[in-house]
Amino acid sequence: MLRALGLTCALASMSAMADAPKNIIFFIGDGMGPAYTSAYRYYVADSDVDRVTPTVFDRLLAGSASTFPHDDTVVTDSAASATALATGVKSYNGAIGVDADKGPLDSVLVKAKQAGWQTGVISTSQVNHATPASFVAHAQSRKDYQEIAEQFYSRRIDGKPLVDVILGGGQKYFSLEEQGLGSKMVDWGYQYVRSFDALPELTQTPAMGLFADVGLDYAIDAEQPLRLSKMLDTALRLFENKSDPFFLMVEGSQIDWCGHGNDIACAMAEMTDFAAALELAEAYAKRHGDTLVVYTADHSTGGLTLGNKGNYRWDAKVVKQVDASLMVINESIEGLSGDALTKALAKNIAFEFSDNERFALESLKNHSDSRYWLLVEFVSRRSHTGWTTKGHDAIDVPVGAIGPMSDKFVGYHDNIELGQSLIDLVN
Amino acid sequence: MLRALGLTCALASMSAMADAPKNIIFFIGDGMGPAYTSAYRYYVADSDVDRVTPTVFDRLLAGSASTFPHDDTVVTDSAASATALATGVKSYNGAIGVDADKGPLDSVLVKAKQAGWQTGVISTSQVNHATPASFVAHAQSRKDYQEIAEQFYSRRIDGKPLVDVILGGGQKYFSLEEQGLGSKMVDWGYQYVRSFDALPELTQTPAMGLFADVGLDYAIDAEQPLRLSKMLDTALRLFENKSDPFFLMVEGSQIDWCGHGNDIACAMAEMTDFAAALELAEAYAKRHGDTLVVYTADHSTGGLTLGNKGNYRWDAKVVKQVDASLMVINESIEGLSGDALTKALAKNIAFEFSDNERFALESLKNHSDSRYWLLVEFVSRRSHTGWTTKGHDAIDVPVGAIGPMSDKFVGYHDNIELGQSLIDLVN
Repeated sequence: MLRALGLTCALASMSAMADAPKNIIFFIGDGMGPAYTSAYRYYVADSDVDRVTPTVFDRLLAGSASTFPHDDTVVTDSAASATALATGVKSYNGAIGVDADKGPLDSVLVKAKQAGWQTGVISTSQVNHATPASFVAHAQSRKDYQEIAEQFYSRRIDGKPLVDVILGGGQKYFSLEEQGLGSKMVDWGYQYVRSFDALPELTQTPAMGLFADVGLDYAIDAEQPLRLSKMLDTALRLFENKSDPFFLMVEGSQIDWCGHGNDIACAMAEMTDFAAALELAEAYAKRHGDTLVVYTADHSTGGLTLGNKGNYRWDAKVVKQVDASLMVINESIEGLSGDALTKALAKNIAFEFSDNERFALESLKNHSDSRYWLLVEFVSRRSHTGWTTKGHDAIDVPVGAIGPMSDKFVGYHDNIELGQSLIDLVN
Repeated sequence: MLRALGLTCALASMSAMADAPKNIIFFIGDGMGPAYTSAYRYYVADSDVDRVTPTVFDRLLAGSASTFPHDDTVVTDSAASATALATGVKSYNGAIGVDADKGPLDSVLVKAKQAGWQTGVISTSQVNHATPASFVAHAQSRKDYQEIAEQFYSRRIDGKPLVDVILGGGQKYFSLEEQGLGSKMVDWGYQYVRSFDALPELTQTPAMGLFADVGLDYAIDAEQPLRLSKMLDTALRLFENKSDPFFLMVEGSQIDWCGHGNDIACAMAEMTDFAAALELAEAYAKRHGDTLVVYTADHSTGGLTLGNKGNYRWDAKVVKQVDASLMVINESIEGLSGDALTKALAKNIAFEFSDNERFALESLKNHSDSRYWLLVEFVSRRSHTGWTTKGHDAIDVPVGAIGPMSDKFVGYHDNIELGQSLIDLVN
């Protein structure tokens, strides 16, 4: 009896397993290693023990993933890792949707479109940047920006657009001038807006919204810091016009950029943007039982850790005292000294600088790069934020999921296994 | 029919869930943040992409845990975190089995003993060090070493020993002199050995084996580097004499100590020891379907990251070229210069030093501490290992499990939830 029951349950469970998601939303936090998701929890709580509560990253957490590229460096770049996540194949640093021999690979987005799904990419970088590019294009080098952009137009499935919804930055690659790529896409049927205010004008697919010449402003500097939620909301609205399933990739592109700049306040603002969009998707998945939401990162950036120089402390309150990117703050103090410097600093940073610190900034008033890294040092020292590199590191990244088949993402996976799982689900 | 089948399966699944483990082995890698388990994978593979394969940490991975203590620092010490893991209650840094108001807390080990289980602790530190201490003792300060040691003798359940198997370091606290704590325990019935060779002399519980005055030698410096497996093997042999269930805590204590010293080769040797013991437990769990094995860390140490100073690379081959702890190497070059220095370095380090590096070491030949950190810098620079602190950091730590109820450990948990889950399982 027990054995018979076991068999019956195994069959029932196989049928549950066969219940693949209708829609997939795949979030990639560029550079979002585990120190970022840990930090974000304490950042939200203001480092107050009584306010620490699980974040959306925690609620969805399923395991972690390794990210090493197809060489012996162990440390990946965004192109190799996005290619792994998009195609399920390891490649070299710099590869966009091509394998180690530079042969083209079809991404999960391409396979979804071939299977009749609606498709979309959202990023806060230019949409032809490494991560979204790996889902759409083939290029031997991530630096072939215009060539990659052209493939948003030239790669077609049954003569139709490969990507139904394209939202992010990159106007300069999708120009509206005569014979410009943007014009060609409009002629081909794309609705194309170039400001967040115009998003309601997107009423049907194919649709494109590009909101900056290249990447969007940093969230911490932006009038509209929650731009991913706005874009995600639009994409979901457009997809819902049709009954076809959809595959959507959403990238928090600039977590990585703030990480390269070792700018913790900038990174936490990007995390806030990314988390808000992930929460929107979590709510969508709960409301519609048919949508799988997966999040991960392509790698960790900056060698971020929470604690430095022997201090047993990480202070989110200090991080919140900085309300612009250090890049913007650094520009704002170019050439300044004395009271002008003090006033300019006070405009964006709520903590006091010591005389020695102001003197050091003054002495570098015409040395932008050195002064930038001095600002980094002052914020890191006070908040006890640790950084080991301006590049990437090889630590495993978090993976989380909610919705049908989310069990597939429990435990440890290599990044190519995540890509393979997604491809299995759209096939 | 489907609904009835669903109900039947739900009941069957509830019965599987109710199937609590008979035995629990709880592994704590002291200081083992996610950079350590990531690094260990690449260390085993020699940073060779074709040899990268999942480790035991990967095979068992279930999620991750936050570790913040009961204050606003966010960064825990081993005492507060071990207390959280042992008792399910947050406390202050330094607390051993007491809450934030310094009131005593019963650990999962105590509750297991009260429920009739056999119990044990294994560590590579002295057994009265913070982590094992939090499972056995109550103390307002982790520094009360002798007071903590006394509780291995004085805390009794129904007049019987609280801890049936005690293996690790700490002879100086368990002296065999007249009226010494070790003597009293022997008089009370403990078998007590003081060398690894004598382990076979332990034939029944209660049993104690202490193999060093304080902590054991670093694995990288030890004649017997796989000491955790040896101790675990002994504990399992002793427990199997009786049919009662057992709760065993196994600590890889010195991963943390190498981390404090920012000594990556030392840390990887400790990880090798810890992984071998975890593999032994994994095999045991597979052989006996009734044993739950859980691993986690109390916190991460050193702000370790894999990648530094802008290099997209972490080189395990360099790490393997160092075959002693930097502490031992540093002592071996005290006062040396010229050829004597070169020869002494070559004894334990296979890479070549530049003239400048040798000159710098020579100039510090009588400055042990500064010379130590220079050695750290030379190894870190070559292997591209990043460190941000000599203390701890606040990044979430890995959690893994195998065996009955291992599903309880999937996803994100705070460290007190891990402790509470273990307590639920022994109640």
